[in-house]
Order: sequence, then structure tokens, then C-alpha cells
Amino acid sequence: MKNTNTHVEPRITLVGAGPGDPDLITMKGVKAIRAANVILYDALVNVEILDYANPDALKICVGKRSGQHSHTQEEINQLMVSSALTYGHVVRLKGGDPFVFGRGYEELNYAADYSIPAVAIPGLSSSISVPGLQQIPVTHRGLSESFWVVTGTTASGDISNDLYEAVRSKATVVVLMGLHKLKRIVKLYQNEGKRKLPVAVIQSGSTDAEKIVVGIVDTIEELVLEHDIAAPAVLVFGEVVSLHPSFQPIREFYKIIAEEI
Amino acid sequence: MKNTNTHVEPRITLVGAGPGDPDLITMKGVKAIRAANVILYDALVNVEILDYANPDALKICVGKRSGQHSHTQEEINQLMVSSALTYGHVVRLKGGDPFVFGRGYEELNYAADYSIPAVAIPGLSSSISVPGLQQIPVTHRGLSESFWVVTGTTASGDISNDLYEAVRSKATVVVLMGLHKLKRIVKLYQNEGKRKLPVAVIQSGSTDAEKIVVGIVDTIEELVLEHDIAAPAVLVFGEVVSLHPSFQPIREFYKIIAEEI
Repeated sequence: MKNTNTHVEPRITLVGAGPGDPDLITMKGVKAIRAANVILYDALVNVEILDYANPDALKICVGKRSGQHSHTQEEINQLMVSSALTYGHVVRLKGGDPFVFGRGYEELNYAADYSIPAVAIPGLSSSISVPGLQQIPVTHRGLSESFWVVTGTTASGDISNDLYEAVRSKATVVVLMGLHKLKRIVKLYQNEGKRKLPVAVIQSGSTDAEKIVVGIVDTIEELVLEHDIAAPAVLVFGEVVSLHPSFQPIREFYKIIAEEI
Repeated sequence: MKNTNTHVEPRITLVGAGPGDPDLITMKGVKAIRAANVILYDALVNVEILDYANPDALKICVGKRSGQHSHTQEEINQLMVSSALTYGHVVRLKGGDPFVFGRGYEELNYAADYSIPAVAIPGLSSSISVPGLQQIPVTHRGLSESFWVVTGTTASGDISNDLYEAVRSKATVVVLMGLHKLKRIVKLYQNEGKRKLPVAVIQSGSTDAEKIVVGIVDTIEELVLEHDIAAPAVLVFGEVVSLHPSFQPIREFYKIIAEEI
């Protein structure tokens, strides 16, 4: 797209694209995309969402995916600002919600340093929506009065210290970006004596590649291997997982075992 | 609307309407509303969302609002099922997300008891989106690696026991339906020695009635009174609140006080 407008008004809109299904973006997000001159999108964003854009808009994938060239956060920030200064309205399209482990605030802050007006339009976080689409409620009367969302991958590459506390709590615990740390997280639950706590692991929620395994702390690693569950995946630990239909046979199995002993 | 279709196919779709702004509903939610014969909506849902509906669709407010007649959950469940059996597609439109303190699973379960197919379409939970629209990120590198969402009003009417643990954690703590319990929650933080933890209270996020106050644990009750903050409100406790522009003068004030001592 050529910059034919001599009066470019730079502005930036961070848009949360939601968990994957292009229909799970908000109306407001779609309106921003339609009005964008440039769209910078993450690798995890469903490219079908780009169909909402003006055909003349520049569409640039800045996403990080293992094994491919990935832009650093600094490069993304710079591209966002230079695109806004050159072309006008930049939509920074991010998977899930911009502020749930999305580094959205860093991008807003960067825009502010250049005095470029920037706003954020929330998106469905996979932490709530991906279990919800499987009819696993993050809260449910009698089972859970709260939910705690933790990252499996901190800046240091280690699991979050908050997970040590989370496994002790009665909250439903949702771990994002934690599949490759499942062994360590399972160990934490086992150390707390929560070997039979229900667990679900949901891959690529809301997309054609969606898969779910439901088990308990002691069995979930094996189930993940057996069913070839791959990232991105949402881990859900808590009694609410027992509401999923696949949990019924597990409950019956342990009842029979308990009666036999 | 008369039931002229002799082959009614009953089905129920729970739709999360998001925090209030009618543009903050998902495309998928809008499609469900357009296809609905009956819409049962909560009092907190913005009625502008009903403009997406077929003009012939029945629209019934089943919401609970203080001082007015409110349907019990049992009445809502029965109305939902009888409407589906009589008219076909019922959309149960709920504020926020159906599974975040929304009793969504109870409604799905009730539909299942009558063998009526039921699905849920997630909505933006105010727990993430309302702080986000104020550019308060629930997570931010260096400040918060997790967030914990707790209800201020449990089935028993008391605050959740989970709050006793939440105030001790390093998570960003978001309390929904907790404004009238603010005094007790503040006391819990004070007992933990977190008197200067940043706090935001946001009323009617994403609507024309939106208001925010930003302070610290020791000052937030007074600010809420002074600015007439009313329910519905989202409470946010955590260092991430310090990123809000209104926190800057507060930080400077305490710096000056500290230097004077």
C-alpha cells in the first residue's frame, strides 16, 4: 500500500483476536481491523480474521513460532511505531487478550513514548473461553468460588513461583503456555497430595485442531503422550473438570477400585 | 411471536454478552442472537445488543436487579426450557462470560435433563476486560505472573474463603460483585501488612456510566465514597494498578512523605 495521504494520523489499536475461531473476535475488534491501514498479527492468530480487513491494508505476520524466524519484541515495537508514522492506523492483532501474558502494556507504553495515541480492545482469553467451549466452567457453585490463571513460561523460562501457591489453593488453576512444563506442575500437585484432582488439557481450543484429554493428576501426563497433545494447550486443574462428560467413567473406575480395597 | 412452525426444534445457546458495550460481544454471539426465536436476557446486559435480534423474536428480561421483581434461577431454567420446547431456538444472554460466576453450567445441565441440545458461546469477562479497557493489564512482566479472580458474593452471602488466600498471594487479585464487601476485603489486606498495595475500583466498565478510582488499600474506601462509586464494579488489587496514569501522583505523594520522615 502506498502512502498517498499526506496527512497521516498515526494511531495504534491493540486487538485481542480471541482463542482461534475467527467468529470469536468482538464486533469492536472487527471494526478496528476494517479501519486499519496496517495489521501486524501474531502467528497464533487465525489468518481468516484478516478477511475482515481492507484489501489494501498491509498485513504482516510478526509472530513467534518455534523453528522459524521470529521478530523480537523490540522489533515488533519498532515496526508498529514506524508503520503508524508512515501509514496511519495500525492494528496490532494478538491471540487471546492483549493483557493476559500478551505484553500488551509494553506495546502501549512504546507507542506512548512516541506520543502515538494507542488503545486496547479486549479479546477472549483462552484461559476462560477454551475450557468454556468444552463446557468446563472455571467457576461452579459448590466446586469453585475462584479461578487462578498462571503462565507456565515466565521471562526466565522457568515456571512461575505463583504456581507453588496456586497448587495449594482451592481455586480452579488454569495454566497457559504450560504444556512443556506439565511434568513439573504434576509433581507440585503430587507433593501436595492432590493425586486424584481432575485435570483437563485442551489443545488448539476453538479450532479444527481442537483435542481434549481429561484425567487426574496421576494420569494426565500419560494421556497427553498417548493422544499426541501439542502446544498451544490450556491446562485446567480443579474439581470443575469433573463436570466434563469424559470424567464420568474415571469417577466410576476409582469408585470400583475403592470398593475392591 | 406465534409458533407457526409445527416442527419446532428446541435448542439453547448460552451467550456471553461481555462487560456492557454492545460492540464487545463476539461475532458468534451476534450470529446466535440473529438466529434466536426467544432471547432471555439478564438485567446487566446492555439492551442495545437486542437490536441484533430478529424483530419477531420474543425478548424477555429475566434479570435480577435490586428493588424489582427478580426471577429465581429455577424460574429462569423453567422459562428457558419451556421457551425452547414452544418456540425453538432460545438464546440465554448473560453479562460477561456464562461460566464466570454466571451459573452457566447449571443452565446447561437443566437443558440436558430435558434432552435439549445446549451450547455456550463465551463472552468477555469483566474480570480481564474492564481493567484492560482502563489500560490496567492483569499481568505484566516484572509486576505480575498471574491473576486470581474471586467472587465477593458467595452462595452464602459471605465473601469467599478463597479471598483469605488470595490476599496473601503475589497474583493480581480481581474481585467481582465485591463492592459492598470492600471494607472486609481491605481489612484482609491490612492484616497482611499490604496497606500501600495499589487498588483500582471500576464502575460500569465499558459503558457511559464508567468511573474509576485509583488508590491504595488504605485509601480506597474513602475514594469509593467520595466519588459515589456504585455497583456493578470490578475491584483490582495488585502492583499492575500502579501502571494506570492516575497512580503517578499517588506514588509521588508517598515518596515525598517518605523523604520527610
